[in-house]
Amino acid sequence: MAVSKPSIPKGTRDFSPAEMSRRNYMFDVIKGVFRRHGFLPLETPAMENLSTLLGKYGEEGDKLLFRILNSGDFTRGLAADDLDNPSAMAPKISDKGLRYDLTVPFARYVVQHRNDIVFPFRRYQIQPVWRADRPQRGRYREFYQCDVDIVGSRSLLNEAELVQIVRQVFSQLGIAVTIKLNNRKILYGIAESIGHADRMTDITVAIDKIDKIGMDAVCEELRSKDIGEEALDSLKPILELRGSNDLKLKTLRQTIGHSETGMDGIGEMEKLLDYCAALGIDGNVEVDLSLARGLNYYTGTIFEVKANDFEIGSICGGGRYDDLTGIFGMPDTPGVGISFGADRIYDVMNGLGLFPDEATVSTKVLFLNFGPQEELASMKALAQLREAGIPSEIYPDNAKVKKQMEYANKRGIPFVVIIGSEELATGMAVVKDMRDGSQRTVPAGEIARLPEL
Amino acid sequence: MAVSKPSIPKGTRDFSPAEMSRRNYMFDVIKGVFRRHGFLPLETPAMENLSTLLGKYGEEGDKLLFRILNSGDFTRGLAADDLDNPSAMAPKISDKGLRYDLTVPFARYVVQHRNDIVFPFRRYQIQPVWRADRPQRGRYREFYQCDVDIVGSRSLLNEAELVQIVRQVFSQLGIAVTIKLNNRKILYGIAESIGHADRMTDITVAIDKIDKIGMDAVCEELRSKDIGEEALDSLKPILELRGSNDLKLKTLRQTIGHSETGMDGIGEMEKLLDYCAALGIDGNVEVDLSLARGLNYYTGTIFEVKANDFEIGSICGGGRYDDLTGIFGMPDTPGVGISFGADRIYDVMNGLGLFPDEATVSTKVLFLNFGPQEELASMKALAQLREAGIPSEIYPDNAKVKKQMEYANKRGIPFVVIIGSEELATGMAVVKDMRDGSQRTVPAGEIARLPEL
Repeated sequence: MAVSKPSIPKGTRDFSPAEMSRRNYMFDVIKGVFRRHGFLPLETPAMENLSTLLGKYGEEGDKLLFRILNSGDFTRGLAADDLDNPSAMAPKISDKGLRYDLTVPFARYVVQHRNDIVFPFRRYQIQPVWRADRPQRGRYREFYQCDVDIVGSRSLLNEAELVQIVRQVFSQLGIAVTIKLNNRKILYGIAESIGHADRMTDITVAIDKIDKIGMDAVCEELRSKDIGEEALDSLKPILELRGSNDLKLKTLRQTIGHSETGMDGIGEMEKLLDYCAALGIDGNVEVDLSLARGLNYYTGTIFEVKANDFEIGSICGGGRYDDLTGIFGMPDTPGVGISFGADRIYDVMNGLGLFPDEATVSTKVLFLNFGPQEELASMKALAQLREAGIPSEIYPDNAKVKKQMEYANKRGIPFVVIIGSEELATGMAVVKDMRDGSQRTVPAGEIARLPEL
Repeated sequence: MAVSKPSIPKGTRDFSPAEMSRRNYMFDVIKGVFRRHGFLPLETPAMENLSTLLGKYGEEGDKLLFRILNSGDFTRGLAADDLDNPSAMAPKISDKGLRYDLTVPFARYVVQHRNDIVFPFRRYQIQPVWRADRPQRGRYREFYQCDVDIVGSRSLLNEAELVQIVRQVFSQLGIAVTIKLNNRKILYGIAESIGHADRMTDITVAIDKIDKIGMDAVCEELRSKDIGEEALDSLKPILELRGSNDLKLKTLRQTIGHSETGMDGIGEMEKLLDYCAALGIDGNVEVDLSLARGLNYYTGTIFEVKANDFEIGSICGGGRYDDLTGIFGMPDTPGVGISFGADRIYDVMNGLGLFPDEATVSTKVLFLNFGPQEELASMKALAQLREAGIPSEIYPDNAKVKKQMEYANKRGIPFVVIIGSEELATGMAVVKDMRDGSQRTVPAGEIARLPEL
């Protein structure tokens, strides 16, 4: 029977055991840091009602939602003129969609369970999201997001805790990073000081692209939005400010000092930097006034994290918002959160060779199989290894030794144990290090205690 | 603005932090046992091509697939007569579906990556699946499956390893279980010996219901399928066989001894039981000839696990199959696997109060917040606790002490640390046990070393 080789939908991925082991290592480090900081895990369903999702990501986002076809007799209610009109037909045959991010489901969760939640609510959430984006290198239709938020508190201590979490995660993963900070209130102050307070969004959106397209193109874009030359002339030096955080803030205080909101932002930034200094976590923390982040719901501090030694976009980012849940009719839930970019962090670690051996080695010991009696003796020693927490297995068949050794090699199993007829008679076992070929003979009952395992 | 409270699609669930902590505990135990036995993690995408899924679960299963509406202009190619015919229209507007189980995606993975996989391939997979079933108590439209399989080996040692895994998982979780075993070849032998070898499927399907509907109803069902009284008279005593495993197999050997396949099955069962005895894992392992399991692709050993002290269906089950990947045109991939029923295991553990404290307590220590100076001293001690791996946090605002204590109480945080102005002056800290109200004063730098934390 000739059947074509099966495949998976474009933009999706299988994660092989080798990839999974590394991904699990990465997520375990991240989760460990979250937990030690008192954050609680949360999971929401893959499917949400479309009424929850629609209108939350802009028009473009709505188009990128994966919709679930209603079950059963879904054609009821369709009319002939629906046939030419996908956007009229879709709502009639689909009332559920796959989650597009973790923020909207989190907001929905907070509103739905507000009476059971103890605020301030510290939660983390690591789950896949789906977007019907055009797949391309590094952009997938299914990918994991990894969010951590504190809602129900306006304290800047929360920002400091997030800086600490970022530092600990990346220090444990071995990635040198720079943590960039800005504040939406400072951006507003800048817009106000150049005479365009009402154009905050246009200005933010343009500034956000400065890393990608450069200062000239940003100015061009702003000109096309009717921001005049005079305003641009005052804007440029602010965005080009260099030097220490102190110096930037001092200069800024002079430039936008007449904007009350701007001064609030500077005050918040100073307080956050004071926290960081007092906690000894201010190294590589950098005020970056060109940092804008596209999402409009941020209202205070914004964060972005870059890897120092690897060329890739930001690997983590987030910010403070005044109102997470207003979209669901529950006002006044302020909070602050960041999102770790799992795919990019994985790429950085792979690119820099940062995954430790234990994240790539799965089974540590393979017992060769020499037939019924030897098998039994092996199984008993094997049970001791597993008891000691050492991932180990026995080749299930009495196959040729060459084949069994090949299995160990291909799997990258570093140690092979041989209990053949001779060893069986003496109660011994040969432990062979597959990496250098060295071997030694030890009592079978003592393998689990070998220091190299 | 009055907005209706948002909700989630019926049959789906949010997992709150308390539930997640317990679920994580359960999954961590299961994964730990899998890993120690040399199994490797695998993940496949939530969406599969419908060509992969359709026809694999029977007609009923096809109807229960959640289909994803194609993106973009999905109405192209629709004709007026599609409007009255959902089953003709669905394939034109949807070419992807959500996975229905983990077995078919696993088979697809094995075929797709056969050149990269080292056989025997030991993998585990823990992911949600989706079924458009009618939601009811204990039946969800999104639920986790937890599968472990060894493919590419016919050795019965693999069966013994699965028995060992089952024992270790449930012993670590604290659930007393009975492991029921049968063999499809024995069932075939029985069908053959009662003169109905060709009716193996009908007989298996009927026997499978014996626990639910009883012997009489099973006989009634078989009568309706033209199994005669004489055959039923020979069948009944076999299914009612009681006594030790040895006795059952001995009697069976007499009854179905003339069936070659049946004798093969008895031989396999004996070998598996021998393994279990030699490994000391034969307690509560029970040959149950009425165990059939509905799925027709099982061809050898079949397993089912019941909780001894809690009334619920089987909490784990599986079996051996000759041909996992034939559905995708790659014959001869034998294997054996089992699936742990996460939701039921969770219910058993909850019902019997088996979740340990560490699975329900999240944050262990809360530092109260008494203002800027005290906060800073607290943050320093807090960093030491986190360093020591103790989940801990500080209340982010200098709120009223009553409010902060209420937060600790509602969150179930067992210890509160107080560094007020007095303690600040002396470098001390008060550690209060919230469960009995006791408290003691210690140097702030030594909190992390307290034995009770």
